[in-house]
Amino acid sequence: MGIVDQIVAGDLRTAARLLRDIDDQMPSARPVLRELYAHTGKAHVVGFTGSPGVGKSTLVDQLALQYRKKGLTVAILAVDPTSPFTGGAILGDRIRMQRHFLDPGVFIRSLATRGHFGGLTRSTNDMINVMDAMGKDVILVETVGVGQDEVEIAHNAHTTVLVTIPGMGDEVQAIKAGIMEIGDIFVVNKADREGSRKTIRELKNLVELGFRRKEENTWVPTIFETQAPKGVGIEELHEGILKHREYLLANDQGQLDRLLEKRARYQLTEAIRDEAYKAVLERLEGNGISLDALVQKIKDKEGDPYSIVQEVVGKTAP
Amino acid sequence: MGIVDQIVAGDLRTAARLLRDIDDQMPSARPVLRELYAHTGKAHVVGFTGSPGVGKSTLVDQLALQYRKKGLTVAILAVDPTSPFTGGAILGDRIRMQRHFLDPGVFIRSLATRGHFGGLTRSTNDMINVMDAMGKDVILVETVGVGQDEVEIAHNAHTTVLVTIPGMGDEVQAIKAGIMEIGDIFVVNKADREGSRKTIRELKNLVELGFRRKEENTWVPTIFETQAPKGVGIEELHEGILKHREYLLANDQGQLDRLLEKRARYQLTEAIRDEAYKAVLERLEGNGISLDALVQKIKDKEGDPYSIVQEVVGKTAP
Repeated sequence: MGIVDQIVAGDLRTAARLLRDIDDQMPSARPVLRELYAHTGKAHVVGFTGSPGVGKSTLVDQLALQYRKKGLTVAILAVDPTSPFTGGAILGDRIRMQRHFLDPGVFIRSLATRGHFGGLTRSTNDMINVMDAMGKDVILVETVGVGQDEVEIAHNAHTTVLVTIPGMGDEVQAIKAGIMEIGDIFVVNKADREGSRKTIRELKNLVELGFRRKEENTWVPTIFETQAPKGVGIEELHEGILKHREYLLANDQGQLDRLLEKRARYQLTEAIRDEAYKAVLERLEGNGISLDALVQKIKDKEGDPYSIVQEVVGKTAP
Repeated sequence: MGIVDQIVAGDLRTAARLLRDIDDQMPSARPVLRELYAHTGKAHVVGFTGSPGVGKSTLVDQLALQYRKKGLTVAILAVDPTSPFTGGAILGDRIRMQRHFLDPGVFIRSLATRGHFGGLTRSTNDMINVMDAMGKDVILVETVGVGQDEVEIAHNAHTTVLVTIPGMGDEVQAIKAGIMEIGDIFVVNKADREGSRKTIRELKNLVELGFRRKEENTWVPTIFETQAPKGVGIEELHEGILKHREYLLANDQGQLDRLLEKRARYQLTEAIRDEAYKAVLERLEGNGISLDALVQKIKDKEGDPYSIVQEVVGKTAP
């Protein structure tokens, strides 16, 4: 049985090896991904974003248990953009995998996002495709980060869950408004903390404000309170996520269609950026020009970066 | 007097127009940036990162006042990756500019990071170069975001200040460790809050752990407690930032040199990525192939993104 067949059959070892190759940006992963693509498109991809410290990992673990109770298979992908510095050890798979160790229905992997940022979204995408082709019913994607990171992750998910906690200060309100458009579901975790009522109220106001003139068949973000370590509110949140999935599937206004198109566009443009850059570097090398020499020139102010780039991209292209 | 001369002379209107053009990614900004580059390299660039809600803006405003007291000129650049969704209104210049309105020595601009992420770092870089060429002594760069964003910003700064608050949970420790290598200075803001002592202690432990086997002339991160709205601890923090600058300038181990090389490399590779992508799109268009058609093909699974990209980048390159 070839690699592709093994992965489609759900073989964990083969899948794990491929995922590691993707994280290491090995070119050997590409032909496999190419063939696997036809097997994707069945999983429900749920993205979780929010500041560090809000308890996303525990929330995701608890939700995985809910899916398992219903007999669904789950993959968890933890994207940790801070780990280029630590080798990915901190949010490592090992500790978390112990939790679901006896349950082969939960497949956990983390992406250490080595190398350049451009690689992050692309690798996330590739890994989701592998987990999807494996036949996982649900893929829970969790990212450490607020800001552009979560916007990028949201491009890869069908349902985006924004997690916050009480008492994060006024600035949070600004953030919430800013990313309101990418959040399908809002969660106030650690809801037993002081200020929980206030945070919930403010979120409700924001949603009401933002969706005052809602069109028919628009999804209005829903809000949930949870205490993840105690399991409080998890069932309700789980139902909420399933509701959003039903909405996407049932909606005859083409919501899912638009989402899939957006995802395809995103995958394509990210990949073109990456490959086009690599092609320029290769051609530079072929012409005997080293990147190091150009860096030195800019640093020493012998040239400005703007002219050098134009020259380099112009020179190496037809 | 030409645009370049006007900016070097510190003309605010001309500079503001150029910065807006950069944010809008107007090609007309490029020739100006090219000429301005020779005038850069004098300002001290200080980056501020940390989760939303930790009070970075107030901290930066207070520090600006400290620099002004010493007669130095200050530029503040607020990078807000969430604002593609809001048009940049939330972290808008207007509210903050009122604060320093009567002081022409403080120049405040925000970057709304419209469009693709690739543009964020590049525009940040370009804006720093403009502010530098204007003759500002200090450029305080503040970003909303944790994770990859702050790593990117750190590539642009000479001194990186990581801001946190007490009681952000265990996960924060992981983050702190992960980004320890990019933080020159750590600030625990809102230090009057519960848990402040504990956070300081944990940070101290992390620094001790991370720099146990420090080499000679290594900068060991310093830690400060502040209450930004009340101005508590600001003078000490300001002195701490100046100390790091002195360290960079005095160090004969080539720290500053390495930093400048890293920055030049970063600027160059980011710009190549951007331009190479644009070149591919232009050539596609020239060949009568629309990006939309390719997106549709991927979405409908008539092709896989991996093959299509290879074809596109290969076809349009020699």
